[in-house]
Amino acid sequence: MADCIFCRIAAGDIPATIVGRTEDAVAFRDLNPQAPVHILVIPTRHITTMFDADTDLAEVAVGQCIRLAVQVAKREGLEPGGYRLVINTAKDGGQSVFHVHVHLLGGRAMAWPPG
Amino acid sequence: MADCIFCRIAAGDIPATIVGRTEDAVAFRDLNPQAPVHILVIPTRHITTMFDADTDLAEVAVGQCIRLAVQVAKREGLEPGGYRLVINTAKDGGQSVFHVHVHLLGGRAMAWPPG
Repeated sequence: MADCIFCRIAAGDIPATIVGRTEDAVAFRDLNPQAPVHILVIPTRHITTMFDADTDLAEVAVGQCIRLAVQVAKREGLEPGGYRLVINTAKDGGQSVFHVHVHLLGGRAMAWPPG
Repeated sequence: MADCIFCRIAAGDIPATIVGRTEDAVAFRDLNPQAPVHILVIPTRHITTMFDADTDLAEVAVGQCIRLAVQVAKREGLEPGGYRLVINTAKDGGQSVFHVHVHLLGGRAMAWPPG
């Protein structure tokens, strides 16, 4: 989608600090980090919110994002310390960009509740 | 795993308020809810932490958990309001039960940062 900032990052049209990539997912640093490590992992293909994720294709795409997040977490030195993965959906979830993304946060102890 | 409380819930050996189930995942209410809706979704097959999720099998299992969470969220009336999905890993992530689980939280506005 031409007007989606995350589609444009995935396509290389907007600069971002890319830290991982597979055929179907891209990981890059969050511009407003909430932890020493704060990375976003997005599916290359546009999915607006998790409301649209109840399809086989979306299940695979989100599964691949989670797996890339796990791999990036390891490279970022978050094993064995740990980390939190977060997916925000719509207003109550705090979603700010309407292209599905997985937040990977680590490098500090995360509190409970999660927001 | 006989000594894993979530394996025992999945097997029906420990009571829980089950709100959804597929062949490979089970959803039930969290006993210490942090939001009006707070549900856990677990893979039926034991995975200790996301550290162990960098395999094809685990990618599929976690993808199915996320999809079941999306379906349960819809049934719980969290569309179009929204919700947050959270996976805690190890100590810094705040993981308390060592069987991978997806938290589904909704029914209130979730704050930022997520813990």
